[in-house]
Amino acid sequence: MSDITLAIDVMGGDFGPRVTIVAIANTLKCNSKLSFLLFGDEYQIVPLLKKYSLENHPRIQLHHTKQVIDADVPFSTAIRQSKNSSMRLAIEAVATGKAQGCISGGNTGALMGLAKLLIEPLPNIERPALTSLIPTMNGNSTVMLDLGANIEVSNHQLIQFADMGNIFAQVMLGLVYPRLSLLNIGTEENKGTTQIKEVHQVLKTRLDLNYIGFIESDKLTSYITDVIVCDGYSGNIALKALEGAAKNILSLLKKEKADSDICRKAKRYLLRTIFYRYYRKLQEINPDRHNGATLLGLSKVIVKSHGGANVNAFGYAINYAVRQIENDIPNKILQRLNQLENK
Amino acid sequence: MSDITLAIDVMGGDFGPRVTIVAIANTLKCNSKLSFLLFGDEYQIVPLLKKYSLENHPRIQLHHTKQVIDADVPFSTAIRQSKNSSMRLAIEAVATGKAQGCISGGNTGALMGLAKLLIEPLPNIERPALTSLIPTMNGNSTVMLDLGANIEVSNHQLIQFADMGNIFAQVMLGLVYPRLSLLNIGTEENKGTTQIKEVHQVLKTRLDLNYIGFIESDKLTSYITDVIVCDGYSGNIALKALEGAAKNILSLLKKEKADSDICRKAKRYLLRTIFYRYYRKLQEINPDRHNGATLLGLSKVIVKSHGGANVNAFGYAINYAVRQIENDIPNKILQRLNQLENK
Repeated sequence: MSDITLAIDVMGGDFGPRVTIVAIANTLKCNSKLSFLLFGDEYQIVPLLKKYSLENHPRIQLHHTKQVIDADVPFSTAIRQSKNSSMRLAIEAVATGKAQGCISGGNTGALMGLAKLLIEPLPNIERPALTSLIPTMNGNSTVMLDLGANIEVSNHQLIQFADMGNIFAQVMLGLVYPRLSLLNIGTEENKGTTQIKEVHQVLKTRLDLNYIGFIESDKLTSYITDVIVCDGYSGNIALKALEGAAKNILSLLKKEKADSDICRKAKRYLLRTIFYRYYRKLQEINPDRHNGATLLGLSKVIVKSHGGANVNAFGYAINYAVRQIENDIPNKILQRLNQLENK
Repeated sequence: MSDITLAIDVMGGDFGPRVTIVAIANTLKCNSKLSFLLFGDEYQIVPLLKKYSLENHPRIQLHHTKQVIDADVPFSTAIRQSKNSSMRLAIEAVATGKAQGCISGGNTGALMGLAKLLIEPLPNIERPALTSLIPTMNGNSTVMLDLGANIEVSNHQLIQFADMGNIFAQVMLGLVYPRLSLLNIGTEENKGTTQIKEVHQVLKTRLDLNYIGFIESDKLTSYITDVIVCDGYSGNIALKALEGAAKNILSLLKKEKADSDICRKAKRYLLRTIFYRYYRKLQEINPDRHNGATLLGLSKVIVKSHGGANVNAFGYAINYAVRQIENDIPNKILQRLNQLENK
């Protein structure tokens, strides 16, 4: 593995440096080829770097800025706030070649907007798509795109998403002929919008793709497909519904666990044994392990971490970016699309 | 309570009479004012009626038909199959006034199509909407519509869904001024499709409605709203994603429970105590308890039960229909829409 430099928007996400710096500290220990460019408020960051003995670490470079983009402001406000912000500086570091990838847990709209503005799209790609690996019930992953970058899309764009998702699954999941599906409200041919029916007919003729038809949103995590293609509106609604349900049920169980531990000290050993078993199972579908969405179709790797990500989850997002850079995903997409265009 | 007669498509659903007849047997015991018209294959039904000593029950009338609509065939095939089918006969019984409501666990497309064909819509209603109560994390319910009856809708239709959902929540949830939201991919005003932004602006001016803005699909069960309005495509995707996640996680836990019971007999008492506690909590969000979707906007009560419903769940669907008939929901919607039209 060659050396990789990542630009980090340290201030992004609900917890800012308290999460990002700790995740970086953990990652540095495990990966000796990785360097970080950090962007954010040194008054908040330096004490944390000291705490983790990273103050003069040779693979960390801190660029001070006090400017941040608020998490919940609309896109237009965010862009106005973006000058010299930690997020924009991190993306610019990638645009100018100082880093190979960027990770931010900040305002999603701003990240997507700035990335499209500052990072060159791949030739022939009409629209980049927000892409993520989602966990399946058997402990594997499925690629899903678009998750919200494009509210309204054309048929051709949906087909490009299918091609990009196909390559992403080949590389990131190590599959030769990934199963590909379109998200729809039924599995019969006559179901869904006019657009989805038309794209379905086109994909059926594409023998280079292992297109298996429609998938309904209650099967997202059933591992009956490797790539789920959808417009950004449906994809965002499906994924958030899934995440919300998983989070709510897990929180019920966690609360229960806390109660039990406090009230039933004598039974602690047994509880731990039991909870360990089902916790391990639930961890397989824990969203933390799948944190990180990437804007597929750009010439560089830009990863969005969940705003609410904890240290482990942010660590996964870093790892997600590293794997994409190591495997040179943008270039693989470029080559494949060139092949298709020249056919 | 006055006497109510329900028409039941006994053959509908994955388990047919094995579920529907048992649920009916249970319901008859608890509700002395309820009668049933049963439609289906007497060779399958009569043995079950005998088993539950319902063979000559005064409040059961069986209409034999061998014809059924297959669960997974497309709408066009289903309609061709529909003549003399258990589902069609049940709906016709409602259309001709022999029953006040109908329940079927069969082919959703066919049920919606036949209901729209055979049951008069309310005057002024452009399109009926598939409406359900969804469970919230604190044990309450939220009304959600449309869940799949209308793939593409107009602004005016979405606003009618809001009005119908509002009345449904007032009556079924006993609320004076239900909180009303539009499903969207963000909560800021500039988020979402052109349509959703336009409808948002209209609903903001409607002071007779307690419209509180957009809701994202990860908050469906958070009880921050009482009515969620959406087009049938987004609604179907959101609800199925939610249901799929809940079902998958519950199945993991149930499997774990079974393992534990078998392997650790000595610890059974303790396990039961612990599992009872979190099972009770999980039951609050158990989809079974919220089985039943109704086509709101028709002049009669037509309820769709989940295809995979078990006896308890089908019982809930029966109860759901009974409550709507008792409260005369179609007439309440009619009155309110007439008021609005005359303003």
